[in-house]
Amino acid sequence: MSIAIIAPPRNVDSWLIHFTELYPGETVEVWPNITKPDEVECALVWYHPEGCLQDFPNLKMICSMGAGVDHIMRDHALPVGIPITRIVDDLLAKSMTRYIITCILNFHRRFLKYAKDKKERVWDMKNPEIDVKVGILGIGQLGQDLARKLQLLDIDVIGFSRGAKSIDNIPTLHGENEMDEFLSQINILVCLLPLTKETEGILNRDLFRKMNKNTCLINVARGKHLIENDLIWAIENEIISEAYLDVFNEEPLDIRHPFWNKREVFITPHIASVTNPLAAIPQVINNLNNARHNKPLSHQVDMSKGY
Amino acid sequence: MSIAIIAPPRNVDSWLIHFTELYPGETVEVWPNITKPDEVECALVWYHPEGCLQDFPNLKMICSMGAGVDHIMRDHALPVGIPITRIVDDLLAKSMTRYIITCILNFHRRFLKYAKDKKERVWDMKNPEIDVKVGILGIGQLGQDLARKLQLLDIDVIGFSRGAKSIDNIPTLHGENEMDEFLSQINILVCLLPLTKETEGILNRDLFRKMNKNTCLINVARGKHLIENDLIWAIENEIISEAYLDVFNEEPLDIRHPFWNKREVFITPHIASVTNPLAAIPQVINNLNNARHNKPLSHQVDMSKGY
Repeated sequence: MSIAIIAPPRNVDSWLIHFTELYPGETVEVWPNITKPDEVECALVWYHPEGCLQDFPNLKMICSMGAGVDHIMRDHALPVGIPITRIVDDLLAKSMTRYIITCILNFHRRFLKYAKDKKERVWDMKNPEIDVKVGILGIGQLGQDLARKLQLLDIDVIGFSRGAKSIDNIPTLHGENEMDEFLSQINILVCLLPLTKETEGILNRDLFRKMNKNTCLINVARGKHLIENDLIWAIENEIISEAYLDVFNEEPLDIRHPFWNKREVFITPHIASVTNPLAAIPQVINNLNNARHNKPLSHQVDMSKGY
Repeated sequence: MSIAIIAPPRNVDSWLIHFTELYPGETVEVWPNITKPDEVECALVWYHPEGCLQDFPNLKMICSMGAGVDHIMRDHALPVGIPITRIVDDLLAKSMTRYIITCILNFHRRFLKYAKDKKERVWDMKNPEIDVKVGILGIGQLGQDLARKLQLLDIDVIGFSRGAKSIDNIPTLHGENEMDEFLSQINILVCLLPLTKETEGILNRDLFRKMNKNTCLINVARGKHLIENDLIWAIENEIISEAYLDVFNEEPLDIRHPFWNKREVFITPHIASVTNPLAAIPQVINNLNNARHNKPLSHQVDMSKGY
C-alpha cells in the first residue's frame, strides 16, 4: 500500500523528507515514478495531469496539497466516487492573514504613495491615513481568521458569503441581493473565494461599477477570479486606486503583461501562503487511516458545491 | 484665566475649533497673540521658542501637545517648579501601532524586495517570508500596545527598558548589562524611547555592531536617537538590511540627504502618529482643573528622568 505525490509544478523534496521522518512505515512515491500503481491508496495532488488518477484502481482518497481544490475539479476524468479532501492548516491561515494585513496596512498608511514620494524626494505630511473598512469575499476558515485579527487592530470589517452564515461578532452579508450593500460599505475588497464555476470571473467590470471610488482590491485566491482587463479599466476609471495581486490568469506572469507597468498594481509571485508539510502530513495520514477503516473523512469536498 | 497654545511649527486650527466646541467657557489664545500674559494658567506647547514661558507669571502647568516632552526640556529657561505633563492618547497608540506593524510586516513578507522585483519584471517565489523576532527599545504605553498586538499576530516580541519592569506576558530585558543579550535575540529593532540626554544618539555604530546580520531598524521616536551616518555604515556593512524611518535629525529631510537615494531606507515624513485634539483636549482640561485645585496631575513628567 502506498501514497503517490503527483505535483508536477512543485519541488516536493521537503514533503518526502517529512513523510519519512514522521511516518517511516508508509511508502511514498513521486509521480511519474510509481512502481506499483495498484498499491496506491492515496493520491496527494497539485495540478496533476488530467486523467492520470485513472491509473490507480485501488485509490481510497484524493487529497489536495493546499486549501484549494479547483486544480483537482478541472480534471474531467476523475475516478468516480473517490472522496476528495483538502488541507486545513492553522499555519497556512496565520501566514495568509499576515500577508493580507500587510496589503491592508500599506493601503491604510499609504506606503505606496510614500515610496513614490521618496523617489521624487517629496516631503508631504498631509493625509497620512486612509480610513478603511475591509470587505471579505468568502468568509470561511481563512476569512474568519483575517476578520478577527483586523478587529484586534481596530480595523472595521464585514464578511460576505454565498449562503446565510452566522459568525460570532463578524457582521456578514450574503446572497446576490446583498452584494450591492456589501460593496457600498467598504473601500478594501479581499477575495478569498474558492474557485468554482460560479466564482470564476466574479471580479469583473459589473462588480467594479458598484464599488466606491478609490477602493483597494486584494486577490489572494485564484487568478481566474479576476478578469484582468477589467481591473485595468477600473484603475483607469479611478474606481480601484491600488490592487495587490498574488495570483494571475497565467503564472508566472508573462513578461509582457500590462500589470508590470501599472503603478497601481502591486505584484507578488503566488507566495501569500504556502502549505506547510509538517502541518499537512499528519492530516493526510489521519484521513488515510479513516479511509482505510471506512470512517468519515475530515475536510472532505462537497462535490455539489465544488469546494 | 486662559490657555495659551504655543506651537510655531503647527497649524492649530483644529485644536481651537475643538476647544470652543468642548469647553466654550475656557479662553484659548494662540502665541504670539496672547492679550493678557498674566492670565495664562496653562501653556499647551510644541517646540515653543526658548524662554517664552517666562512671560507668564501665573502659569500652573505646561502641557506637551504630544507624547514626547523633549521639545520642552531643551528650553534652558523653563520657569522653575511648574509641572510638565504629556498627552497619553489611546488613538495615538492605535495609530502608532498600526504604522509600526506595517513596517514589520513589509520586512517579514519582503514587500520592498517584491517592489524591486516588479520593476525588473522578475518572478521569484523563493523564500517568501523572513522569520522575525521584534525587539522594542522602550516598553512604555506605546511599546506595550505594540507588543500585545504583535503577539496576537503570532509574531515573537521582546521588550527592553532601562530599569527593571515586569509586564504581564511580555518578556523584557533591562539595563546596560542585558543589551547584548537583547540585540542577539532579535532581527527587528523598534525604537520607541523618549529623547533624553541618555538616549540621544543611542542608535549608533557601537549598538549596530552587536546586532545580527540583516536586521531591520524602525525609528518612530525622534530623529536625534539615530546617528544617521552610522546607519549608512551599518547598511553598507550588511548589518541593517532595511530601515523604516519616520523621524530625522532635521525635518523636513534635506533634499540632498543621502537617505533619499538609499534603496534600503524607507522614508515617511513624521506621520507615524499624530495627536488627536479630540482625545487630547479633555486630558488638558481635566489636568488644568486638577492644577487649579492643587490635586495631583496625570501623566506628569518626572524631571529626574526627563520623561
